[in-house]
Amino acid sequence: MIHDVRRAATIAIGNELIEGCHSDTNSGEIAARLAELGIEVAQFTVLGDDRDRLVRAFRELTAEFQLVIATGGLGPTLDDITREAAAEAAGVALEMDPAALAHLRELWAQRGRPMPKTNERQAWIPATAQSMENSAGTAPGFRLWIDGGVLAVLPGPPREMRAMLEGALLPWVRATCGVGPATCVRSLYLCGLPESQFADDVGPWMARGENPRVDVTAKSGVLSVRVVGRMASQEEATAITEARLNELAKRFERHVFSCEDPRLEVALVRALGERQWRISFAESCTGGGMAQRLTDVSGSSAVFRESWVTYANESKQLRLGVPAALLEAHGAVSREVAEAMAVGALRESGADLALSVTGIAGPDGGTPAKPVGLVWFGVAERDRVRSEERRFLQHGRESIRAFAVHAGLELAWRTVRGQPWPKR
Amino acid sequence: MIHDVRRAATIAIGNELIEGCHSDTNSGEIAARLAELGIEVAQFTVLGDDRDRLVRAFRELTAEFQLVIATGGLGPTLDDITREAAAEAAGVALEMDPAALAHLRELWAQRGRPMPKTNERQAWIPATAQSMENSAGTAPGFRLWIDGGVLAVLPGPPREMRAMLEGALLPWVRATCGVGPATCVRSLYLCGLPESQFADDVGPWMARGENPRVDVTAKSGVLSVRVVGRMASQEEATAITEARLNELAKRFERHVFSCEDPRLEVALVRALGERQWRISFAESCTGGGMAQRLTDVSGSSAVFRESWVTYANESKQLRLGVPAALLEAHGAVSREVAEAMAVGALRESGADLALSVTGIAGPDGGTPAKPVGLVWFGVAERDRVRSEERRFLQHGRESIRAFAVHAGLELAWRTVRGQPWPKR
Repeated sequence: MIHDVRRAATIAIGNELIEGCHSDTNSGEIAARLAELGIEVAQFTVLGDDRDRLVRAFRELTAEFQLVIATGGLGPTLDDITREAAAEAAGVALEMDPAALAHLRELWAQRGRPMPKTNERQAWIPATAQSMENSAGTAPGFRLWIDGGVLAVLPGPPREMRAMLEGALLPWVRATCGVGPATCVRSLYLCGLPESQFADDVGPWMARGENPRVDVTAKSGVLSVRVVGRMASQEEATAITEARLNELAKRFERHVFSCEDPRLEVALVRALGERQWRISFAESCTGGGMAQRLTDVSGSSAVFRESWVTYANESKQLRLGVPAALLEAHGAVSREVAEAMAVGALRESGADLALSVTGIAGPDGGTPAKPVGLVWFGVAERDRVRSEERRFLQHGRESIRAFAVHAGLELAWRTVRGQPWPKR
Repeated sequence: MIHDVRRAATIAIGNELIEGCHSDTNSGEIAARLAELGIEVAQFTVLGDDRDRLVRAFRELTAEFQLVIATGGLGPTLDDITREAAAEAAGVALEMDPAALAHLRELWAQRGRPMPKTNERQAWIPATAQSMENSAGTAPGFRLWIDGGVLAVLPGPPREMRAMLEGALLPWVRATCGVGPATCVRSLYLCGLPESQFADDVGPWMARGENPRVDVTAKSGVLSVRVVGRMASQEEATAITEARLNELAKRFERHVFSCEDPRLEVALVRALGERQWRISFAESCTGGGMAQRLTDVSGSSAVFRESWVTYANESKQLRLGVPAALLEAHGAVSREVAEAMAVGALRESGADLALSVTGIAGPDGGTPAKPVGLVWFGVAERDRVRSEERRFLQHGRESIRAFAVHAGLELAWRTVRGQPWPKR
């Protein structure tokens, strides 16, 4: 029985992680879920498939933390050695787990294929471990006592990790670890505001030791603000956290688009739905990225029917009716063409709002007057059309496209909500 | 002077990382770049903005590794305490760096705005540190000796980190650390093959201790295979690595799409360019994701002019000429409609190849006969049209869309290359 586990650690395992081929996203997901149970993850460690380092890390971290969650290295191949390292750290042998083997055989039978010999390795777990079923893949996970702490080992693929975390590990943590300290976490998502301006306005609320504490991070145009309050009781923690949150929401009301979801497209779909508006897009430099983001939201079909990717000038003329003379006089990346694209998309689609984007994503095609990173947006409503220029200078192609998608969605959101466009 | 640094470690710092809001991508990038210099990064650590933990980690890791690279926590706000922690670990005070302050003032002057008082903090670095200029943002970085090792601190935003890594830290490492062991790393990227089948075919080449060692990771339909050879001389290391690589390339030739770039869309743009073909898309459930991926590739305008996002049935009829009767008889997610969409996009765009996709991304809209995850693809060439069904069952909406984009691009790539479509 573990009591009062307040701090945990994670270990992500795999040569592909330590060599920079992929990033570890599992640890962050685990930390966010444990935080809801009042357990703070204080450290993530990423290691390669290196048995000696793994054994040492398993021992050192279970000596310091009562709960250590490792992910990865449970695959069928010889470079996956997490099972062996965990057994060695606990000083026990590997044993074949009959239930795990049966589960593996059944999975392969469902696929109508014979199980490769290689996969049998996955059914071997440390002798003193409790196995955890993998409802989304082949490798079973397990929990294992090592001295004073518990090492829980989950598969590396995020989908399998998530299924085992939700289905097996978290229920065990809830049942075993009791209730953590009274913590309340609330979020607020803002757009159209630089991080340093937010910090200047908020000042001492962000200082270390403040309670509730406010922190902020910026990513792709979105500020994610978290308010964390800790008190003796849950009621008190919630009260101080929500009071601070409400003050922030009021102070930055022109920028707050959600308290729940950091995806601006979710706020946009909701705002369109509230006004019963439909949207369409005419995209050049973003190549479909805006429509793709919007349709990431389930239920977007209520507010979106179609859009165009008009990459070539000819396509802008044919599909959206942009006059050739306009393209010739001002160039494809111009206020005039952006507006004509938006008006054309509105007319063709019959939507209530159309957003166009045309810009120079680079790396080639820039000139002194129209540098790489210059992007024009057009926003057409039934009774007016507006446009906006942005310059994402000193960014690479991918970053320019990502910022352009965000900036466009922000203009659309502000338009639907009747909010002023941000000053630049 | 450091000699023969063979192992390094990284530390990524930030509450937003340890609380699961973002993932650390900096460490992986740093590891990949250092590997090219023969320096192996053996461990990543992620910590929050927690001064005591940071001080301890800086001391412990510099005692074990001769080079420790930390990123993040250099922002202007009070929750950024990496500077203070580094100074404390080295047992020195913070001092204002006049060059860094001048750089900050200049940046704000360029933006035409007064520098907020908060930003002055960024110019303070540990007294014994050498500052490193930030060419892409405000926070200067620095290098600092702590006992036997060097702690290098870089900003957290990836773009700023990258600029400082390339512009300041790597040149210093090259000049100071000498040449590492003779290592050769080569990659191979495959599609249309399950990871376990690859592993079964390759067998002992993946065993621990093999030289060259082969490892493989699967992500979103792509297998990334790495071959790493180590020998006394660079010539020998290159020779054994490339020999193994060539054997693999031959054995899996129907699946290898690149030796350089894991992005299938790059291979597709190249293949289209070689045949002087143009492509167009008719996307329903992927909502523009295919066009977006293709246009991520710079130079894609040579092979792509336009495409359609036809989310609603009405749009499939109007834009692509899909007969209403066909939609009624077979439903939007069917072989017949997929083929008609592809044929329509080919005709309208005048391209040489058109790819369509229509599927049920969920979470709603599935039936027993047409479950969530069912996706139909149509591939139209000048003289024929083909189609293919895929079932991405037990996936979420985002994952279904991502796999559908990948599967579609793979069908297009195989078609352009005249490769057989994979058997399912």
